[in-house]
Amino acid sequence: MIFFNSDYTEGAHPKVMDRLLETNLVQTDGYGEDPYCMRAREIIRRLCGNDTLDVHFLVGGTQTNLTVISAALRPHQGVLAAETGHVNVHEAGAIESCGHKVLAIPSADGKITAQQVEEAYKGHIEDDSFEHCVQPKMVYISNPTEMGTLYTRAELELLAGVCRKNGLYLYMDGARLGYGLSAAGNELDLKTIAGLCDVFYIGGTKVGALFGEAVVIANPGLKEDFRYIMKQKGALLAKGRLLGLQFQALLEDGLYFTIGKRANELADEIRNACRSAGYPFLVENTTNQVFAVMPDEKLEQLKEKYVFCYQQRIDDTHSAVRFCTSWATISENVRALADDISGKGE
Amino acid sequence: MIFFNSDYTEGAHPKVMDRLLETNLVQTDGYGEDPYCMRAREIIRRLCGNDTLDVHFLVGGTQTNLTVISAALRPHQGVLAAETGHVNVHEAGAIESCGHKVLAIPSADGKITAQQVEEAYKGHIEDDSFEHCVQPKMVYISNPTEMGTLYTRAELELLAGVCRKNGLYLYMDGARLGYGLSAAGNELDLKTIAGLCDVFYIGGTKVGALFGEAVVIANPGLKEDFRYIMKQKGALLAKGRLLGLQFQALLEDGLYFTIGKRANELADEIRNACRSAGYPFLVENTTNQVFAVMPDEKLEQLKEKYVFCYQQRIDDTHSAVRFCTSWATISENVRALADDISGKGE
Amino acid sequence: MIFFNSDYTEGAHPKVMDRLLETNLVQTDGYGEDPYCMRAREIIRRLCGNDTLDVHFLVGGTQTNLTVISAALRPHQGVLAAETGHVNVHEAGAIESCGHKVLAIPSADGKITAQQVEEAYKGHIEDDSFEHCVQPKMVYISNPTEMGTLYTRAELELLAGVCRKNGLYLYMDGARLGYGLSAAGNELDLKTIAGLCDVFYIGGTKVGALFGEAVVIANPGLKEDFRYIMKQKGALLAKGRLLGLQFQALLEDGLYFTIGKRANELADEIRNACRSAGYPFLVENTTNQVFAVMPDEKLEQLKEKYVFCYQQRIDDTHSAVRFCTSWATISENVRALADDISGKGE
Amino acid sequence: MIFFNSDYTEGAHPKVMDRLLETNLVQTDGYGEDPYCMRAREIIRRLCGNDTLDVHFLVGGTQTNLTVISAALRPHQGVLAAETGHVNVHEAGAIESCGHKVLAIPSADGKITAQQVEEAYKGHIEDDSFEHCVQPKMVYISNPTEMGTLYTRAELELLAGVCRKNGLYLYMDGARLGYGLSAAGNELDLKTIAGLCDVFYIGGTKVGALFGEAVVIANPGLKEDFRYIMKQKGALLAKGRLLGLQFQALLEDGLYFTIGKRANELADEIRNACRSAGYPFLVENTTNQVFAVMPDEKLEQLKEKYVFCYQQRIDDTHSAVRFCTSWATISENVRALADDISGKGE
Repeated sequence: MIFFNSDYTEGAHPKVMDRLLETNLVQTDGYGEDPYCMRAREIIRRLCGNDTLDVHFLVGGTQTNLTVISAALRPHQGVLAAETGHVNVHEAGAIESCGHKVLAIPSADGKITAQQVEEAYKGHIEDDSFEHCVQPKMVYISNPTEMGTLYTRAELELLAGVCRKNGLYLYMDGARLGYGLSAAGNELDLKTIAGLCDVFYIGGTKVGALFGEAVVIANPGLKEDFRYIMKQKGALLAKGRLLGLQFQALLEDGLYFTIGKRANELADEIRNACRSAGYPFLVENTTNQVFAVMPDEKLEQLKEKYVFCYQQRIDDTHSAVRFCTSWATISENVRALADDISGKGE
Repeated sequence: MIFFNSDYTEGAHPKVMDRLLETNLVQTDGYGEDPYCMRAREIIRRLCGNDTLDVHFLVGGTQTNLTVISAALRPHQGVLAAETGHVNVHEAGAIESCGHKVLAIPSADGKITAQQVEEAYKGHIEDDSFEHCVQPKMVYISNPTEMGTLYTRAELELLAGVCRKNGLYLYMDGARLGYGLSAAGNELDLKTIAGLCDVFYIGGTKVGALFGEAVVIANPGLKEDFRYIMKQKGALLAKGRLLGLQFQALLEDGLYFTIGKRANELADEIRNACRSAGYPFLVENTTNQVFAVMPDEKLEQLKEKYVFCYQQRIDDTHSAVRFCTSWATISENVRALADDISGKGE
Repeated sequence: MIFFNSDYTEGAHPKVMDRLLETNLVQTDGYGEDPYCMRAREIIRRLCGNDTLDVHFLVGGTQTNLTVISAALRPHQGVLAAETGHVNVHEAGAIESCGHKVLAIPSADGKITAQQVEEAYKGHIEDDSFEHCVQPKMVYISNPTEMGTLYTRAELELLAGVCRKNGLYLYMDGARLGYGLSAAGNELDLKTIAGLCDVFYIGGTKVGALFGEAVVIANPGLKEDFRYIMKQKGALLAKGRLLGLQFQALLEDGLYFTIGKRANELADEIRNACRSAGYPFLVENTTNQVFAVMPDEKLEQLKEKYVFCYQQRIDDTHSAVRFCTSWATISENVRALADDISGKGE
Repeated sequence: MIFFNSDYTEGAHPKVMDRLLETNLVQTDGYGEDPYCMRAREIIRRLCGNDTLDVHFLVGGTQTNLTVISAALRPHQGVLAAETGHVNVHEAGAIESCGHKVLAIPSADGKITAQQVEEAYKGHIEDDSFEHCVQPKMVYISNPTEMGTLYTRAELELLAGVCRKNGLYLYMDGARLGYGLSAAGNELDLKTIAGLCDVFYIGGTKVGALFGEAVVIANPGLKEDFRYIMKQKGALLAKGRLLGLQFQALLEDGLYFTIGKRANELADEIRNACRSAGYPFLVENTTNQVFAVMPDEKLEQLKEKYVFCYQQRIDDTHSAVRFCTSWATISENVRALADDISGKGE
């Protein structure tokens, strides 16, 4: 079977593995206070064009989201997020477990708009019984979104504007940021993101690392005592060096973006095959996730050779599914899938 | 100004006050282990037709909801509720603060259906990544709902059926239960509710008491150590006797239902005035809350004499508002309001 | 049986009951935004000599402690308290349930010293792995303490000094403050307390009210959004007026202190009887709780007529017990108990 | 500088690294549902002699402790632990953050006794106001303890007995289990532990893995929905295979114990050097942590070449420090340290 069900079906990019091997017996302090983490922090600050940023390395995405949100909010405050947002639907209640409500905003493509945020905020403060309601204090966006879509520069600027005006924190979940920043049509880069968001993370798990997410904190108000919260949430890795080493390997020479771009291009092949076969998309995007709508019969046939994700039922005879590519995807496998989708494989 | 903005604008029914006064200097043990609480528990068990029920007295509704839910659920479990449900929108995140997600279900009239619950439950267990999602474990309904509507006997039986089949707890918030059980068209009584729900509460604060909610636990699995959780949530009143005394006064001879019926009838006068003036309702009901849609101009005029609640904007020139009656509402005030609504007052 | 087991065995002082009765049918807004609460706040601000204080009314002590602490601390922060402190031992884990560790400090008499706080704080910040430990951020003291003892003015000033120097909040639990401020040897008053503490509460439940605790916030940093947290914790009483009315009745003319003084004097009669009979005290104090050590045989005999609290075993034949007086204690009962203790009753 | 400050200053045992490399590009499902995890689970069940055990793989120790405890306890329940226990002092309040109090028990050597547990439990249930106190429900022990000491078989049997009698869960933190089970004088093995504990974990991070802890659940009552809780706490590693692979490498042929034994023997060399130099131990043990008491002057001298942990001040001129060995410790470095301690190095 060939796996297209997620972007974490393999280990790590060979360069990452080499780096881990090379340094395996070097002695360092634990908990992210080693030279590799220091160096990775410098690289990230440089790429973001801001040497005052705080950078912390955590292991996984849910852990990162719950740690950032728990560190930022007071008990009565909640986080606005697209109803499709990872924090709203796929973290088993991690945010609520830390005491905070996710205030879901309708979204067809995974994105939310500055206007939706403004309305939610105004709706709250203009409510006579606002003290009986959760106070919106943070806006959570993911880029690419869970639907693979991207925020334009203008959209992000507007979101940042409405957040600053209303005292909300803007937080970007960058679990797949490498795919996003190297995608066709992308208008963002790390400098822009670090300038507009209060806090965001650069995802490693899905983009070449064994695991790891780098949290970047721009807002000074969110920096204090972050490591205590990491420790409390079980997010302070004993051998923190493993995280620094991986981010160093991925970011020091642009590998993170190179492998992102390649994965997007392989996804394009799948998209093209769908188009040529007349299969529509649940949502269009240019990143490494393809959300295709196909006849159930066709899907049954593809299931014999490929593993992919069921997304949702469309009608009695059609479903939406997800195919993912990644840094590790083999071109031949994509070609085979594309052929099987377009019918050339038969 | 005359207050119709809520059903808790006065103190307590005179009989309740008398009872508190009479017993004021009697010495009792604290924390609900006094003879008045014992007696009130017996009365409630008798009215519910089940002498194995556990009965606990708490102070307020939000406190009751968070205590019941916290006692019932494990960390990864959530509570299904109408999107208009009190636990979802008006408790400042109390449920999330206890670690649990409120899984909101669309509802136009404040009610949810057995089918919606079934779909939510099946949607969860049939999801490939169900362990990444909050597990639905409890169904929260309010009766009357926040929109003043009532569950029919058949609706409640269906809900109880789907809950039992799927291992979900059914919990009824009865903040206004006295108004519900005495309303025109009501099909429920305490026996039925105690037979169908795993746990529910009989609201005192809004129906004649100074404060107080009586939690009735039918499901043996929910009984263990409930008092510990009450204490932990600050819900174990030192002078618990005050709660027992009030429920005894309200329930021993049916006062709770008599005053509920009267309030509903006064609300009918307001409803009739609206009808006669051609004002539609946001939601129709037969209980003590009237949700009327009126021209803003008319509302401005009413605001000069009456206090009521703004509910929501309907269009550029109309809004929905809420008028509440209660056990304490004065008939003359209702007549005046009715006249002013229908225009006879001018 | 005559109850000396706690200071909440009766209802409320008659003046409080009168005030509730008189105003019972007056209409007001809910949630503490009524004229009675406004007036009670003014009285408290005047008594504290500071018109910038925020004053909130809650129902009970555990609820108050968990609300104040939850509102003040970030997730990794804990509260230093005497190991005998109410928050540490008698709140069923309420503080932990809000996510915070109680950092217990040894104490024989219920008090903690500035030096103990300084050592705990320094021990934390000088620890190499401080980020792996709970950060002390608040100091909880009770006055009178759970052992009935009082802080001197100098002790409180030193505590406040060490707190300010180290950025810790000083919080005083005044569940029995009325007994403390009217006790023989007391050196404190509300002005001093409001000047030295960041936040404290004036206890009503045990000193003349049916229920109620008035939180006074002096530190501006602790004021923001406190009402949201109250609502979230189920601590925003719907008929908040009941709290304002009671504190107004108790504080407008010094009743709170008059009844405190009388209870302390009745406790003195019990203390004198113990002394004359040669029974030592577990801890000496001048407030309304008497902690006497007596032969078990004697206690068995007293149990036939009186209800009191078992405190702890002293040796094979002696135990420490607690007798409480209150605003409601009847002089004749105290005389009878004193006689029975001293042996005159036989 | 040579590091003896912890047992996680290097990466992973070469065999572990080889295994990760070999399998790096194999495609598997995520979240621990891959063949490597399946195989590692089988190995652990076999070593424990019980094929009904549930086995889950998590990343780190604090994460494991908070997940296990959160999954096992209801809100009002707490965990009994030695005051030196990791959950009590070095997890930044992780357990409290999940809502549970750690009930600390005095301990000089890191161990607690069955009698202490029995007394704590009886003290609770015999307290008149037990519902106002946290209910002890779990006993947390570490083996080796934080002081490097070991439970004898008899001690563990007694603890298990008192737990079963009183309905408490027995949980063993095995962060350094490999060092414990291979230590001189050790009386335990995995079969015994799995038979006596309700749940325990086999630590990988400190014994040869890059990271990873294997939770073994024996008590059926603790098995339900554990993966949901893992996900909620951010403890369900996306590439779960990394954990399965590492435990397979360590456990399939006893490597875990071989490297443990070697580290203990290297620690013996340090112990012998201390003895020969007349330096006493804070606590005596036979595992990989040496707690030596030395003159501050001597420590200053050692600090020039070695990194080690300050443990506590003993008197004006002496301190206790900790030296750790591990699977990665180089014999020459130990010899050098031993010589420098005993003075031969000078």
